[in-house]
Amino acid sequence: MSEVWIYIGIGVGVLSIGVALYLYYWVKRQDPGTKEAQEVASWIKEGSQTYLKRLYTALTIVSLILGFIIAVIFSLNLSDVTQNSLTITPSNGIRMALAFVFGALCSAVAGYMGMGVAVEANVRTATAAKDSLTKAFRLSFYAGSVMGLAMVGLAVIGMSVIFLLTGQAEAVLGFSFGASTLALLAKAGGGIYTKTADIAADLVGKVEVGIPEDDPRNPAVVADNVGDNVGDVAGMGADIFDSYVASVVAVMLLGATFGSESQLYMIIPLLLCTLGIIASLLGIQFVRVRENGKPGAALNRGTIITCLIFAIMVAAFVILGKLNYGILWATLTGLVTGVIIGFTSDYFTSEDHKPVVETARVSGSGAAINIITGFSYGLMSVAPSIIGIVAATLSSYYLAEASGISGIYGIGISAVGMLAISGMIVSADAYGPIVDNARGIAEMAGMGQEVIERADILDAAGNTAKAITKGFSISAAALTVLALFAAYAETVEAAGVSIEISLRNPIVVAGVLLGAMTPPIFSALTMLSVTHNAFDMIEEIRRQFREKPGILAGTETPDYATCVDLAAEGALSSLVLPALLAVGVPLLVGFVLGPDALGGFLGGSIFTGVIFALLMANSGGLWDNAKKYIETGKFGGPGSDAHKAGVVGDTVGDPFKDTAGPSLNTLITVMSLVSSLFAPIIAAFHLF
Amino acid sequence: MSEVWIYIGIGVGVLSIGVALYLYYWVKRQDPGTKEAQEVASWIKEGSQTYLKRLYTALTIVSLILGFIIAVIFSLNLSDVTQNSLTITPSNGIRMALAFVFGALCSAVAGYMGMGVAVEANVRTATAAKDSLTKAFRLSFYAGSVMGLAMVGLAVIGMSVIFLLTGQAEAVLGFSFGASTLALLAKAGGGIYTKTADIAADLVGKVEVGIPEDDPRNPAVVADNVGDNVGDVAGMGADIFDSYVASVVAVMLLGATFGSESQLYMIIPLLLCTLGIIASLLGIQFVRVRENGKPGAALNRGTIITCLIFAIMVAAFVILGKLNYGILWATLTGLVTGVIIGFTSDYFTSEDHKPVVETARVSGSGAAINIITGFSYGLMSVAPSIIGIVAATLSSYYLAEASGISGIYGIGISAVGMLAISGMIVSADAYGPIVDNARGIAEMAGMGQEVIERADILDAAGNTAKAITKGFSISAAALTVLALFAAYAETVEAAGVSIEISLRNPIVVAGVLLGAMTPPIFSALTMLSVTHNAFDMIEEIRRQFREKPGILAGTETPDYATCVDLAAEGALSSLVLPALLAVGVPLLVGFVLGPDALGGFLGGSIFTGVIFALLMANSGGLWDNAKKYIETGKFGGPGSDAHKAGVVGDTVGDPFKDTAGPSLNTLITVMSLVSSLFAPIIAAFHLF
Repeated sequence: MSEVWIYIGIGVGVLSIGVALYLYYWVKRQDPGTKEAQEVASWIKEGSQTYLKRLYTALTIVSLILGFIIAVIFSLNLSDVTQNSLTITPSNGIRMALAFVFGALCSAVAGYMGMGVAVEANVRTATAAKDSLTKAFRLSFYAGSVMGLAMVGLAVIGMSVIFLLTGQAEAVLGFSFGASTLALLAKAGGGIYTKTADIAADLVGKVEVGIPEDDPRNPAVVADNVGDNVGDVAGMGADIFDSYVASVVAVMLLGATFGSESQLYMIIPLLLCTLGIIASLLGIQFVRVRENGKPGAALNRGTIITCLIFAIMVAAFVILGKLNYGILWATLTGLVTGVIIGFTSDYFTSEDHKPVVETARVSGSGAAINIITGFSYGLMSVAPSIIGIVAATLSSYYLAEASGISGIYGIGISAVGMLAISGMIVSADAYGPIVDNARGIAEMAGMGQEVIERADILDAAGNTAKAITKGFSISAAALTVLALFAAYAETVEAAGVSIEISLRNPIVVAGVLLGAMTPPIFSALTMLSVTHNAFDMIEEIRRQFREKPGILAGTETPDYATCVDLAAEGALSSLVLPALLAVGVPLLVGFVLGPDALGGFLGGSIFTGVIFALLMANSGGLWDNAKKYIETGKFGGPGSDAHKAGVVGDTVGDPFKDTAGPSLNTLITVMSLVSSLFAPIIAAFHLF
Repeated sequence: MSEVWIYIGIGVGVLSIGVALYLYYWVKRQDPGTKEAQEVASWIKEGSQTYLKRLYTALTIVSLILGFIIAVIFSLNLSDVTQNSLTITPSNGIRMALAFVFGALCSAVAGYMGMGVAVEANVRTATAAKDSLTKAFRLSFYAGSVMGLAMVGLAVIGMSVIFLLTGQAEAVLGFSFGASTLALLAKAGGGIYTKTADIAADLVGKVEVGIPEDDPRNPAVVADNVGDNVGDVAGMGADIFDSYVASVVAVMLLGATFGSESQLYMIIPLLLCTLGIIASLLGIQFVRVRENGKPGAALNRGTIITCLIFAIMVAAFVILGKLNYGILWATLTGLVTGVIIGFTSDYFTSEDHKPVVETARVSGSGAAINIITGFSYGLMSVAPSIIGIVAATLSSYYLAEASGISGIYGIGISAVGMLAISGMIVSADAYGPIVDNARGIAEMAGMGQEVIERADILDAAGNTAKAITKGFSISAAALTVLALFAAYAETVEAAGVSIEISLRNPIVVAGVLLGAMTPPIFSALTMLSVTHNAFDMIEEIRRQFREKPGILAGTETPDYATCVDLAAEGALSSLVLPALLAVGVPLLVGFVLGPDALGGFLGGSIFTGVIFALLMANSGGLWDNAKKYIETGKFGGPGSDAHKAGVVGDTVGDPFKDTAGPSLNTLITVMSLVSSLFAPIIAAFHLF
């Protein structure tokens, strides 16, 4: 019976990818615009593809090395080792390694597809904006949907195939680990790339020589626009791919302990994803905007409708399929909490509320006051999301228990419930960088003020969607890692070792403290890479202006390629330490201090990881919008002291919200996955 | 036998206070300087006393209300309530309330004494600096010692008397709660006061109208110097008083569970404090500096010698008194770790190492790059201290266990070992604001360049001492609250309720998440008070310059009193929310979610509390020194773009290092104490 559901899941996944491909070719058929616009777009496209090629080459090597290590370790039959007789089962190891590599591959393909359509859609959106807002919005949103639909389709197909072939949740765990490792590197690398270029372009271009944003005389302008694609589109795609898969894996691992009913409870998360894809496919149809309509409202309407369709389908399925009602309650808890958290994080980042307005108001007293105020509101913004996560955790736990299934399983289901509608969420989110790029192309190719104004309207909607998505995805990641955390403990126990993650045990407290310091260190490493690389690029831009005075006069073309190279080189070489931290430190803690300490370590990393992710995403968004609010003429308007302070705040917020913040989700997911994967081995061998 | 030790402790405490009083009168006998200097000093003295009077009036009311609540609640005999028969034992309640009020009083007196000598010593130090560096250093350090010695003397006498009278660790817990509650409000209020005035004075004075630091034409200059006294001296004195007492209480509570040996193990922490006072009294003699010597080296020498004397005395005592060797090992672990952490935190904040130099170097690219870089290094600086705390926790635990006593007791002893030499540590720390004030008076009273230069040398040594003290006190507080955390669990169990603070229990995870968000929220509340109040004061300063043009010309005296009032008013009214958060939220979590969740809550607050305290203290110190490094002529020197960026960073760092950061220790201590105090009641009554 339940195998049928897996095949249905694969079918829906194929449908989703089919729709994505159809939309991709539809986008490609649209008018690519004037020759100048196409030339500008081709620079961005080339830069993006070059970077991605280099990134993926590096990641292929990393994946193969990790895959080899996994193959070797999982070939050892561990229960025998403890009995002093070593047998080797290569098939185990090879299966796990293949699952890992397959996960990495799917994650890479999802990111690549998203970027592939984004670099075609940007120039076409700009061209469509010449005609109408409606047309430009439809084009950019459908392009975003390519990414959203491809991603969920690939994920469901990948997980289903592996589960069909092996029947083991552990193999899907390997798949998830592959997806998350790649996502972490893609996200961190893209984040470093995009903010290196953005900050360098702004500081020399806007501040020093006083040319506008996206001016073609700026040697870093192409790198800046490439950054939007490799950071926001490709990186973000890989990121949500990884949470999505990890939430399913967590539930599968927990379901695997359910004895005779385990088969059913392992498949339920896949089923929820399948329903979520159908809901997203339907919900996307409702995202339309009239010529004077509000694109932001259209995106929100699409999200709400998708949620409703999904909720109704899950209810029908649970009732008709005579499933446990706890699954419905947990799903609804996750869904409702996700939406509420998403919209409340809007409070701290939107121009309509006190935090942004107050930060803009005090900016007249200087940059320092702007920074302290924005940072403080960022700290406050942690509260509603944390309270929401606590409420979701406790309600899904107790509702599931009251319905007679494991409460922890309920927490996992609530995470899946949040993420099941990722198809729609990612579509709305991927739309943002596409219109951002369209605006850049319109400016660089001189497409006129009307196009830029329309692009600005589209862009503002993108920023709101982004704020909501971030609150949503951080909360979902928190619930996912809480479920993974429970799965880790189950895995250790399944290996026959008792585990007690009590805060009254000092080795657990030691683990928690070490875990809690990992997200801040990771953030520091990525942000220092940004300032370091930006400093180099600033020198390069200044050099070009100095050595070729014709650039600023508009008679000489700047050397865009050097900046693109600098950004790529810098980002790639900055990934080594963060990667080691993510994979190496949990293993070190586990093998040295033992499984109890590793449990504490994961807990600690979740607690600070979530807090820093929220702090950085929200304060960054707040500073950005405070600056924009001043630019609308408030508190002195453009050029005033308040505006200068606002620009400083915005620049500080850049690596907060686009480099360090978004990688933290993935960091804690990777650390949870690597711990669960190696749990049986760590349970058998550890120093203390 | 062990009662004798308590009497010896009281005797040494009296000796310590005697020496403090002797030094106080010695300081007062020194030359108070010219008439102008005395007048300036009298403004500062008046302002400080006025604020402290208002603060203490408010705190008296708070203490009496809390004392009354405590008296009522602890009069109820709880074991009877659960059996549905209510008996009332007023003597219990009154005893606890008196202990609480006595603790608050001792903490207030320690702060008041420190400030009392500081406002006399500042002008005398400036006057002494006319003669020689040696003389000025001796005067200011001895003035600092008044505070250090009075504080430890009062603490030991207070705890000993209460223990002698009641024989109960719980009564000493009430004393400690009183001391910490007062410390929290004094610290947060002083921190808000000092940075409100500092930021407002700098932004209008230095940045807008271009007059130097401490210029008498600045209407906020008196408030700024008052701030140094009420924030740095009085606040800091109350702060270390509270950690010192809390560490002893934690160990006493743990020792109380030792059955027949409990009497001995409850007295041991008091004994260690007694030895620490003797070591400090001796160590202070070694703090001298020759005319061309380095004051910073002299302070460090004093600390090291005090540590050595203390270690030798403890070793002798353990050997001769035939005590358990675990006590010696744990003490040494704490002592060594404290010193190492103190000196390594110097790495991140001193001009001789990469973080400060690199932050100064990139400042040429603007304020935003300076902020991101400094903040990132601040995040990195968390690592060595956390690793040190982890090492101290694990070593003291396992060394104690290996010696046959409770490992948790060992952790508590290591905290006491760190804090036992507080007499010396506080002396070195209180010296800083005194020389800072002396410099202000020298500037305001026009005492000449040589005096200012000597004051600058003394001031730089004060900043280094401060950085070391902060690392030291945060680590000590971390170990203290870890021991208190264990004591909390013991108290719940002693009430006959089983407690399990396992991270596999979702209600515990909920508690941890809520606890983890409390320190960030607390930081945000205090920092927003600073920007809000500074904004008002900036308006007031601008108003005075506008309405009385004679002020800037030097023909009219500004109205200092209004600024002093504004700062005081603002600081006091900002304390309500933080106080409610510290006392109310733990009780809310405990009574609603139960003792397991409250355990998690305390754990969570410790984890992020320590991380944010380190981040804020170190990044603040780093920005300050990066600015000073640029002012020595590096990377463009004073007036350059790099310098302007450095000033912004320094201003952002101000409330980080002097408002939010230092209060966090006390916040987590107060939350741990209130939880332990109410643990028996929460164990009996809770919603879930």
